[in-house]
Amino acid sequence: MQNDDLILRADIDGVTVLTLNAPKSINALSEAMLRALSDTFDEIAEDRSVKAVILRTGGNHFCAGHNLKEMSARRADADGGFQYFQDLFATCSAMMLRVVRLPQPVIAEVKGIATAAGCQLVASCDLAVAADNATFATSGVNIGLFCSTPMVALSRNVPRKLAMEMLLLGEFLPAARVAEMGLVNRVVPLAELEAASTEMAWIIADKSPSAVKIGKRAYYEQLEMPLEEAYAFAGRTMAENMMAKDAEAGIGAFTRKEPMPEWTGE
Amino acid sequence: MQNDDLILRADIDGVTVLTLNAPKSINALSEAMLRALSDTFDEIAEDRSVKAVILRTGGNHFCAGHNLKEMSARRADADGGFQYFQDLFATCSAMMLRVVRLPQPVIAEVKGIATAAGCQLVASCDLAVAADNATFATSGVNIGLFCSTPMVALSRNVPRKLAMEMLLLGEFLPAARVAEMGLVNRVVPLAELEAASTEMAWIIADKSPSAVKIGKRAYYEQLEMPLEEAYAFAGRTMAENMMAKDAEAGIGAFTRKEPMPEWTGE
Amino acid sequence: MQNDDLILRADIDGVTVLTLNAPKSINALSEAMLRALSDTFDEIAEDRSVKAVILRTGGNHFCAGHNLKEMSARRADADGGFQYFQDLFATCSAMMLRVVRLPQPVIAEVKGIATAAGCQLVASCDLAVAADNATFATSGVNIGLFCSTPMVALSRNVPRKLAMEMLLLGEFLPAARVAEMGLVNRVVPLAELEAASTEMAWIIADKSPSAVKIGKRAYYEQLEMPLEEAYAFAGRTMAENMMAKDAEAGIGAFTRKEPMPEWTGE
Repeated sequence: MQNDDLILRADIDGVTVLTLNAPKSINALSEAMLRALSDTFDEIAEDRSVKAVILRTGGNHFCAGHNLKEMSARRADADGGFQYFQDLFATCSAMMLRVVRLPQPVIAEVKGIATAAGCQLVASCDLAVAADNATFATSGVNIGLFCSTPMVALSRNVPRKLAMEMLLLGEFLPAARVAEMGLVNRVVPLAELEAASTEMAWIIADKSPSAVKIGKRAYYEQLEMPLEEAYAFAGRTMAENMMAKDAEAGIGAFTRKEPMPEWTGE
Repeated sequence: MQNDDLILRADIDGVTVLTLNAPKSINALSEAMLRALSDTFDEIAEDRSVKAVILRTGGNHFCAGHNLKEMSARRADADGGFQYFQDLFATCSAMMLRVVRLPQPVIAEVKGIATAAGCQLVASCDLAVAADNATFATSGVNIGLFCSTPMVALSRNVPRKLAMEMLLLGEFLPAARVAEMGLVNRVVPLAELEAASTEMAWIIADKSPSAVKIGKRAYYEQLEMPLEEAYAFAGRTMAENMMAKDAEAGIGAFTRKEPMPEWTGE
Repeated sequence: MQNDDLILRADIDGVTVLTLNAPKSINALSEAMLRALSDTFDEIAEDRSVKAVILRTGGNHFCAGHNLKEMSARRADADGGFQYFQDLFATCSAMMLRVVRLPQPVIAEVKGIATAAGCQLVASCDLAVAADNATFATSGVNIGLFCSTPMVALSRNVPRKLAMEMLLLGEFLPAARVAEMGLVNRVVPLAELEAASTEMAWIIADKSPSAVKIGKRAYYEQLEMPLEEAYAFAGRTMAENMMAKDAEAGIGAFTRKEPMPEWTGE
């Protein structure tokens, strides 16, 4: 299967590690890679054994964004490629939205270059851990193509002027700088990168999957609401969460000073 | 009166210090505490002698959030407690909104633990000063109850990925870390905590109360508007502020290089 | 021409340096200055030779905000100046929106004091470089006039509690502090300030002007949309950008590993 070539999947104790496996193209988000990612996220969304996802990459880098050669070839289309480009960006945006809407949290594990749609992928994940050699850019502006879809995710992660700096100057910023501004949660030595993201995933896998699922979905929904509406929505969400078996068992154990139960996910 | 037991109030020169006084429960936001806070804020909203409010706590900690034992007892209700939980979260959200809508600024003075709805209370205040021993968490996820209402306030204070980290991992973060991300304004040694929040309150109490009241209300309103609408709204607000007696007296004194007048609050 | 007195304009290789030239009033945003700025931005919006704008100031400071003497004189109007104040704030807001809507990026070059509407002007620019002697305040609250229009821009640049701190306390914060929170991109020694902003402007002037124009406009538009709508909008924007001659030439050169072409701006 093509997906097996482009994305390696390993499942260990509730943590699914997806490894983008196209290092020669710096894991470019080609049509095939976008399809493989979308299919994989669709599978995981239905897979109750998965509690947390790590997005890892083969080779020395995270992801260099779209496949520009593949795109350029479509300039030969009758419309100069316009319809193709529209469809491609829509497909890519839909893949990014799948990350946001996946019931399970997704941790970006970033080393080397994360640029353009690759930087957008980091921004779209729920959490991100970066190696100290990681560098981040939205560099499309350097070649005449402003990173307009990447900026949607980027500008929702960092302050306005930092996003604008990345978008307008097209420069690579070191992990330490983007961590200060909120794009990644932690920066660790490269040798400790897999351990750091794995530890984070284990911590999440150890929680009640129903609580995590309820919470992640509600998080992104309430972000787009005015304050009072957000509270009404979150209050209902939390009352529903109270009725879950896991919440009853967990809160009961806590008040009785007992260890947490085995979560049922219900 | 119950409120006098649960919340101690001291008024000095325009600064009101409210001390949550249930240290044995780590100042849990029980039904009684929520009612006491709501009643107290309603009183202060009408009290023109109050220029600034400090939210202090008795004991070694700030606040541990909801009272889980009180909540668990309602699982015996016919509906398993669902209606009660809905009402409780609505009551708690209404209390948090009272802080936002109070005419006077509220400063959270945080030491020790601030978790779950306790962390939300910090996020809901206009300003926050933390002792260097303060730690912040939205730890409901650890016991199967995602901090969905706390996240409403938290996610409006800090970058998305930091809020998500706190919500998903449930870990306690030190004051220095949350200060970097914007959840608290200042971190000081524990021994200087009261002095730091008091100084901040005095600075505010020294301003025109009408200017502060106009400004605080407008601040939260304009945050929820698109840019152009926010400017139209803020422009009208500022023109109205110009017509206040305090503005006329203050600007007049400033342009004449005289000391500021006694503010009339009008 | 009055504009020539109040704003000095120099154009070098696609970079336009505007120097606010009213140092005696700390470059106050008087009626005449607001008109001069608005007229100048209207000219530049139509001037395809301009690729990037630096907003520099004469004297030792950036800008002290509105001209309070000029405003106070209008208290003698029949309505106490109310209509005048409304018009003035509307004019000022329209000028700030011109910065946001200008096709070319605007870099604030900040030294000394940037307060009230002067601080708002920094926040309204796309990027900002500050000298290490720069200090930032929204100090209207000190004289009875809350900085309500400045807060619109400020609160969209920095975390809520920092904006509230500046608005309520009215204190001057050093460049290093506001840089941490996102209000300025870089802090440099005063002696290197012009070099730093000029270097930033050159980098932008070296990009395709069509890509920059498309991107800047889309940036502020998508910020006000929910996530899914923002992606649909940005996807269309990026497909249109792909059809620009500059994008075709730039991407072509990149995939062929050739130097970037001369941009046509189309």
